[in-house]
Amino acid sequence: MEPQLSLFYGLSTLTAAIAFAFAVYLYMWVKRQPQENKTIEEVAALIRDGANTFMTREYKILAVFAAAAAALIFVFLPAPLWKGSFVSNIAMVLSYLAGAVLSAIAGKIGVLVASLSNGRSAEAAQHGIKPAFLIGFRGGAVMGLLVVGCSLLGVAAVLMAVGDASILLGFSFGASSLALFAKAGGGIFTKTADVSADLTGKVELGIPEDDPRNPAVIADNVGDNVGDVAGMGADLFDSNVAAMTSALVIAQSLAGDFNNVSMVFCYALLGLLASILGIATARIGKNGSPTKALNSSTYVTTGIFMALTAIATAVFEGFSWRIWGASTTGLLVGVIIGLTTDYFTDDTMPIVHKVAHASKSGPAFTILSGVSYGFISSMPAMVGIAVSALVAYKLCAPMGDGYAIFGISMAAVGMLSIVGMIISNDAYGPIVDNARGLAEMGGLGEETIRIADELDSAGNTVKAVTKGFSIGAAGLTVISLLGAFMSEVNVALAAKGMAPITGFDLMDPNVFFGIMIGASIPAVFSAMLILGVDKNAQRMVAEIHRQFDTIVGLREGVPGVKPEYGKCIDIAAAGALKELIPAGLMSIIATVVVGFIGGPRAVGGFLLGNIVSGLLLALFMSNAGGLWDNSKKYVEAGNEGGKGSEAHKAAVIGDTVGDPFKDTAGPSINTQITVVSLVASLLSSLFVSFSLFM
Amino acid sequence: MEPQLSLFYGLSTLTAAIAFAFAVYLYMWVKRQPQENKTIEEVAALIRDGANTFMTREYKILAVFAAAAAALIFVFLPAPLWKGSFVSNIAMVLSYLAGAVLSAIAGKIGVLVASLSNGRSAEAAQHGIKPAFLIGFRGGAVMGLLVVGCSLLGVAAVLMAVGDASILLGFSFGASSLALFAKAGGGIFTKTADVSADLTGKVELGIPEDDPRNPAVIADNVGDNVGDVAGMGADLFDSNVAAMTSALVIAQSLAGDFNNVSMVFCYALLGLLASILGIATARIGKNGSPTKALNSSTYVTTGIFMALTAIATAVFEGFSWRIWGASTTGLLVGVIIGLTTDYFTDDTMPIVHKVAHASKSGPAFTILSGVSYGFISSMPAMVGIAVSALVAYKLCAPMGDGYAIFGISMAAVGMLSIVGMIISNDAYGPIVDNARGLAEMGGLGEETIRIADELDSAGNTVKAVTKGFSIGAAGLTVISLLGAFMSEVNVALAAKGMAPITGFDLMDPNVFFGIMIGASIPAVFSAMLILGVDKNAQRMVAEIHRQFDTIVGLREGVPGVKPEYGKCIDIAAAGALKELIPAGLMSIIATVVVGFIGGPRAVGGFLLGNIVSGLLLALFMSNAGGLWDNSKKYVEAGNEGGKGSEAHKAAVIGDTVGDPFKDTAGPSINTQITVVSLVASLLSSLFVSFSLFM
Repeated sequence: MEPQLSLFYGLSTLTAAIAFAFAVYLYMWVKRQPQENKTIEEVAALIRDGANTFMTREYKILAVFAAAAAALIFVFLPAPLWKGSFVSNIAMVLSYLAGAVLSAIAGKIGVLVASLSNGRSAEAAQHGIKPAFLIGFRGGAVMGLLVVGCSLLGVAAVLMAVGDASILLGFSFGASSLALFAKAGGGIFTKTADVSADLTGKVELGIPEDDPRNPAVIADNVGDNVGDVAGMGADLFDSNVAAMTSALVIAQSLAGDFNNVSMVFCYALLGLLASILGIATARIGKNGSPTKALNSSTYVTTGIFMALTAIATAVFEGFSWRIWGASTTGLLVGVIIGLTTDYFTDDTMPIVHKVAHASKSGPAFTILSGVSYGFISSMPAMVGIAVSALVAYKLCAPMGDGYAIFGISMAAVGMLSIVGMIISNDAYGPIVDNARGLAEMGGLGEETIRIADELDSAGNTVKAVTKGFSIGAAGLTVISLLGAFMSEVNVALAAKGMAPITGFDLMDPNVFFGIMIGASIPAVFSAMLILGVDKNAQRMVAEIHRQFDTIVGLREGVPGVKPEYGKCIDIAAAGALKELIPAGLMSIIATVVVGFIGGPRAVGGFLLGNIVSGLLLALFMSNAGGLWDNSKKYVEAGNEGGKGSEAHKAAVIGDTVGDPFKDTAGPSINTQITVVSLVASLLSSLFVSFSLFM
Repeated sequence: MEPQLSLFYGLSTLTAAIAFAFAVYLYMWVKRQPQENKTIEEVAALIRDGANTFMTREYKILAVFAAAAAALIFVFLPAPLWKGSFVSNIAMVLSYLAGAVLSAIAGKIGVLVASLSNGRSAEAAQHGIKPAFLIGFRGGAVMGLLVVGCSLLGVAAVLMAVGDASILLGFSFGASSLALFAKAGGGIFTKTADVSADLTGKVELGIPEDDPRNPAVIADNVGDNVGDVAGMGADLFDSNVAAMTSALVIAQSLAGDFNNVSMVFCYALLGLLASILGIATARIGKNGSPTKALNSSTYVTTGIFMALTAIATAVFEGFSWRIWGASTTGLLVGVIIGLTTDYFTDDTMPIVHKVAHASKSGPAFTILSGVSYGFISSMPAMVGIAVSALVAYKLCAPMGDGYAIFGISMAAVGMLSIVGMIISNDAYGPIVDNARGLAEMGGLGEETIRIADELDSAGNTVKAVTKGFSIGAAGLTVISLLGAFMSEVNVALAAKGMAPITGFDLMDPNVFFGIMIGASIPAVFSAMLILGVDKNAQRMVAEIHRQFDTIVGLREGVPGVKPEYGKCIDIAAAGALKELIPAGLMSIIATVVVGFIGGPRAVGGFLLGNIVSGLLLALFMSNAGGLWDNSKKYVEAGNEGGKGSEAHKAAVIGDTVGDPFKDTAGPSINTQITVVSLVASLLSSLFVSFSLFM
């Protein structure tokens, strides 16, 4: 059958519509579930309001940033305005704004639904694991469906409207700008609140983790939502859009009889369809394991996607089996990366036990062993990404010039195809985490808390896997963005009548110069975020002390006396965004400086250095953080001395170090790399025209 | 004046002879200094014997390793024996053995002199800072002179004998093999002893650091000598030889009217001459600052070298000013890297104060702030290396094909030119560190200990600078080794009648595959060393417990009852070498596997990934370690609560984490990169002949 691009535009829109309809159905279903406990309802409302406070503030700052970026884009991109590019510059601006706004909408609704689900899941846990699991899972699935639906619809709409995939770079940059704020800003917010609540509550006053007297307690719960739901959703929206964008930019530059653009949309929409089927069929037995339920729905989705794309390849002319092979390799490698991550961070596996055991010799050994295994854990994923890129390239190279890089971009699309499912599993985590806290605050009894605990622990296990998965996907995506950057540079060179570049040679000093500087950016970026958490936490601790000193009766827990939760949320939110901006600007400015010094080849090196050291550090920090977290839990479960022992104290220190590693810096590096890659592609023609050493 | 290569061979031999004669003079001078205190003499002898125990054991294992490597070299390198390359294979074997043996001799004598100087310096401190400083400095200078003299003489001798610089790769590999054992093995040894002594002595028993009852105390002092004197010397011997080798390999491949080979020897011998003059003129006033004395002699050496090379460039025909510019740039960047390192680790600078302040919030914040500033500190050096490579390349590219890379290799030679001075300063550190301990054990009184403390603290400050310097030099060296690797590959390709490769393109999937895997090696290597320290310390702690349990009167300090120091030294030595070997083999095997999978282009990528992530991690770990160490000292000096405060406890934990970072893993990465680069060059013809995806 001869595929028509218009058919796939239509099918993409239809699939997105199905996803939205299904999301609305799930939203209604969640809302219908009973919420009767007054305390839970009240606290849940506080959390919801807090999340809104942060997001409103974030979106306001983002609006200023976006307006400035839009103005710059209007003047300079894709070409300087004075070269008569008015219409395409307007298109780029609109595309940019659409990317940011769609991602923002998905995030906002996702957080809303998550914050409706947590209390209901807590109450449902009174009736067993099954109903509580379903509410948590379906609440998270709304986010997954919205994110993937919005990204597919947005990309299709932009390309239908303008026809030129390079305008999609603007859409993708809009999505990345938002992701930078949501992921890194949310990451600083959540850890500020977490650290401050622990330091003042657990350490200074000796009150329990979720004690309502603590002014930071609501901010802490808000953090789970804005960091793990909104931030993670924006991050994967960004990765998904970037993967499709780079595949489409490369697809449009290819010659040959293959229907490359159609194929990209076909794979993306089948991925969404597979996720919808996976979500719809997710089930858990009455006393089943939630971890198994979550993982098996991931495998079901993977299987459905592979089958559907195989059918499409058989049915449509000009769909290549080689591309199918590349995409399937990407997906399978994604699963393998997830499993190796699990080996290093799961508390039933030996590594967690070793770190817990090392804690017996004191906190220095907790840190040293965690750092060491964190370093080692980066290797399998690095090798996995390298192998999938190599296989995809070799499979697709025989199809013709440029197809090899297209193969890599389709491996990234493959790895991200089931992203709807991944997000659902990921958003499930903070919902049931909140549910656990609410069950405690609402006094729902021990059995309910035990069930909530089991759900929460499944969330943590699955999170490690999805995090490894998303870093792997980001790795392949940015490699294909490097390909997209080269295409853009060659378009700019051709416009000036210059010969195209064929690659970036390591022995070229401009490239090497870029590599060295690019490699140091993720390290500096991470450091700035971690120091940001630290500074912000100091402000918040001062505010908490002020409240305990000035609000009469708060410390003693006099009934009716409440802390000013909102002030803490305000401080965390304002500080998070204030600390984030220098880190983001540093990355962008470094790209521009390298480009104007060394030209496009230096930027190519810069992107590579950034990718390689970024992946290494992201894997190291995410895995080490997860490892310390689970080692602490393992000790708390009664091993190596149990709660209150010296080993436990050491494990807590490890966990505190790991928190900003795994929830602030590690996962933000993805976004930093994507932002920088897109800035490079967008500015490619400027680098071609103006550079010191080109 | 027309330069003759034979003239420079002659002058190199002469300069080396002067260096040896001067070293003998200094050795005699040190030996003539009075050593009267019996306790000091006794303990110094124990330390000397312990160092001998370790080095003998190390050299025995190394002999086995070297024999195996020599056999493999004989059969395969530079070409398989069955291709009739008997003579050149024998030359390669001899060259390999010469590299290992010369480095071993320099290390052995250096440690001997250091262990004669420590007690004498302690006693001299009774008469003031001036005589004590001179003994420490001159004792260290023997090592500096021997290392540089041996490397210059060795390289000149091999090239005179065989004429083909590629045989020097064998010499360089011999030096690297030894450096791997000396630096990484010594690093594990020294931290094993340090950690075990602290854990059992300070923590469990509450006895002072250098209490003679502790069975690990001698091992701890031995560690300073084998790690910081022998290890550091072997490391810089290795870097220096590698820099000269790669410059010579590239020089021989160049066409044109330049006297490139002569120029390499000229620069190297003038560097040694400048170091001799710098050492001879090093002075300190009666109450002068030892830090200033050490640094000013470095600057004097730098100035002399620049002047002498300028004169040589003016005098000799075919010596290019462009090369002089490249070399001078390298040297100046080396100094700048040293100064930025100082900013991040010196306790008079703000960063150390910030980390000390963070310690007030607990150990997690000590770690987080140290990791953050460690990450940030890597950037200036990365940028410095990138800029010096870019400038050297651009300066020398107009000279003709291949000169650009030659320029980079001469920047490395320039950066390493003053290595004799650097080693002298570096070896000074452990001598005066030991002197401080001996002054305490020998009961030389408070004023003497204060003077010894001042000398020790200068050693720590200067060490940070020299460490930054040597990492920078290693960076440029390995870049030029990448150039040497490409030359070797092209020789192999030409021999098979195939077209040469012109570079390593990032977009080539074989190259990318190599980069990703290469980048993960230093992380895994570091982790294996750190875990090795941990395992080894556990063995040693068990032995210390055994001694306290079974030796009657030891715990109580009954006069005449002594611990079995030797057993601890044995355990540290055996364990260090046992833990090191898997890490070294892992790096070498990974190189071979990547080469046989992806061919020479994959290996090129592998080397680059290894260099970039290796430099990043080495800078991070060395600087973070130095930062934690000095923050602890800053707190101990009475700041942020002083000794015994919570901040102090936190700072001690930071220091314990930093110890294996800065003294085991960080500085061993240099050697790991060099070893891997040389293995790649040596095996280049095999990778050309046999690979899966080439």
